[in-house]
Amino acid sequence: MKKLINDPHDVVTESIEGLGLAHPELVTVNSDPLFVTRSSENAKDQGKVGVISGGGSGHEPLHAGFVGTGMLDAAVPGPVFTSPTPDPIFEAAKSADKGTGVVFVVKNYTGDVLNFDTAADLADMEDIEVRQVIVNDDVAVEDSTFTAGRRGVAGTFLVEKITGAAAERGLSLDEVERVAQNAIKNVRSMGVALTSCTVPHVGKPSFDLDDSEIELGVGIHGEPGRRRVPMSSADEITDQLLDPIVADLELKKSDRVIALVNGMGGTPLSELYIVFRRVAQRLSDLGVTLERSDVGNFVTSLEMQGVSVTLLRVDDELLSLYDDPAETPAFVQK
Amino acid sequence: MKKLINDPHDVVTESIEGLGLAHPELVTVNSDPLFVTRSSENAKDQGKVGVISGGGSGHEPLHAGFVGTGMLDAAVPGPVFTSPTPDPIFEAAKSADKGTGVVFVVKNYTGDVLNFDTAADLADMEDIEVRQVIVNDDVAVEDSTFTAGRRGVAGTFLVEKITGAAAERGLSLDEVERVAQNAIKNVRSMGVALTSCTVPHVGKPSFDLDDSEIELGVGIHGEPGRRRVPMSSADEITDQLLDPIVADLELKKSDRVIALVNGMGGTPLSELYIVFRRVAQRLSDLGVTLERSDVGNFVTSLEMQGVSVTLLRVDDELLSLYDDPAETPAFVQK
Repeated sequence: MKKLINDPHDVVTESIEGLGLAHPELVTVNSDPLFVTRSSENAKDQGKVGVISGGGSGHEPLHAGFVGTGMLDAAVPGPVFTSPTPDPIFEAAKSADKGTGVVFVVKNYTGDVLNFDTAADLADMEDIEVRQVIVNDDVAVEDSTFTAGRRGVAGTFLVEKITGAAAERGLSLDEVERVAQNAIKNVRSMGVALTSCTVPHVGKPSFDLDDSEIELGVGIHGEPGRRRVPMSSADEITDQLLDPIVADLELKKSDRVIALVNGMGGTPLSELYIVFRRVAQRLSDLGVTLERSDVGNFVTSLEMQGVSVTLLRVDDELLSLYDDPAETPAFVQK
Repeated sequence: MKKLINDPHDVVTESIEGLGLAHPELVTVNSDPLFVTRSSENAKDQGKVGVISGGGSGHEPLHAGFVGTGMLDAAVPGPVFTSPTPDPIFEAAKSADKGTGVVFVVKNYTGDVLNFDTAADLADMEDIEVRQVIVNDDVAVEDSTFTAGRRGVAGTFLVEKITGAAAERGLSLDEVERVAQNAIKNVRSMGVALTSCTVPHVGKPSFDLDDSEIELGVGIHGEPGRRRVPMSSADEITDQLLDPIVADLELKKSDRVIALVNGMGGTPLSELYIVFRRVAQRLSDLGVTLERSDVGNFVTSLEMQGVSVTLLRVDDELLSLYDDPAETPAFVQK
């Protein structure tokens, strides 16, 4: 294992410390318990619904890279691939609540759902109103090693963008929750791994993959997907990701989508654009309108080589919220 | 070799086609000869100095990802790790010239210098005034396999940002050239490879590296650096990159810098922030003022795992130009 780290047990705290040092004008790091908030000059004082997310680390820039104007008010990073405990989530909620309540954006993993739920109970005892929305965009598997129901994967980025924009507009807690649920209802993803990844404190690859095969439908922790298939061309692999998404969304002609081609951490941007090219061609063939596109590393699995495709079906409201400005360490929109 | 590609010989054209499909509001792809310009709604009609860059592909998002308002007017991608020929550079210059001349931002590699020079001669014959600036920020080696003199590496991103901003402000050709040269004079970089990379049409790793060693001072094509050293901690590796930069720039207390921690393509963002943390600590110890920071994949080497550190010493003018707004596929500044 060759990684640019010091002690494997300090990976998360040192990385988050680096984030804070690099972007002091955008974010502030609270070290004990560990969570990240907007810097004081970016935090609104009152009236705005708070939007909080978090989960195991190893998926950077998700979530802490998306703290800032127009997106998250706070993010709570757990250990690598492990949910944060309720306490830092609760503290982040207290910090983000401006009297109008907070929304928790939670990826659907058993540990995250449990710990965010407990944090919501703690917040309730302090009269902070919490709404939880559960992102479950991965069409690959129904249940998995870490999940009852579908997993939350790269679509979480789009849900955070849109939910954050709704809160930034000053919408009520009910309205922000409604928008978030609408985004979740319309977003689907599927990913593929070309290589495994290595959790720092484990020190060996999470799974083995032959030089000639790929893991179709892989989860963002390297969990098994649908099946192992032989390595093939970018176009063929893209079709294998896109077809189940199109089917599950029941996409039809004249539907409008935002497309996200997301790198798993170790895949060059040039390859992501080759995948995107096929996605765009296929959507055009289907008569689906490609409204906006994102290509890059948004929700990763450490140094895994691989890619996921996400489609979010939008109406005017979702598209307009996506287009709202944002300024965070990892995503800036004018 | 597992890559998300179709025919290895179509990697560059398909990837650039994907870039155009993903960001039609920002860039337009000219396919024969291959170069990328701002989309028509972003191109100013006259009066502005044109800024053009290019070089071998495999370093994405450099250069085509930086075409857009406030940065490049056009980029010319060659084959992977191979300079583009003079013809597309000349065509890009014709497209970018609005009557006030163009600046070529060229990384210091023998092939690039030669081909941009020939393109400048062609442009001259059509009365397009061209100024060339040569980026040579890599302190690792004096001469190398591909270069007479120092190589141009990740500092190119900062030079393109600042030169593009100067042109966007409407400065004269002389002034834009002066600003570019001032940025080049003050920028230094050094990189390290943890793994090799594989050129698609070659199909095997460019070099071999033991599990226990790293290539210190590696070039962005996997060229040899200063020496192979045993793998060590992120902090120790960062010091080995930073010390030669600080010495070469003769940085002293109260100097002001922009710091760039650049991933080589296959390194997780979390590790880049661990490296950045050390850079920030060391600069603080030296009494050097960290004015701005960029952490991410800007100038890559396909899927290589590794990192480079860049420092740009700034005065008020350079900092102000860096802060100017930009909107490109890979870099947005408000």
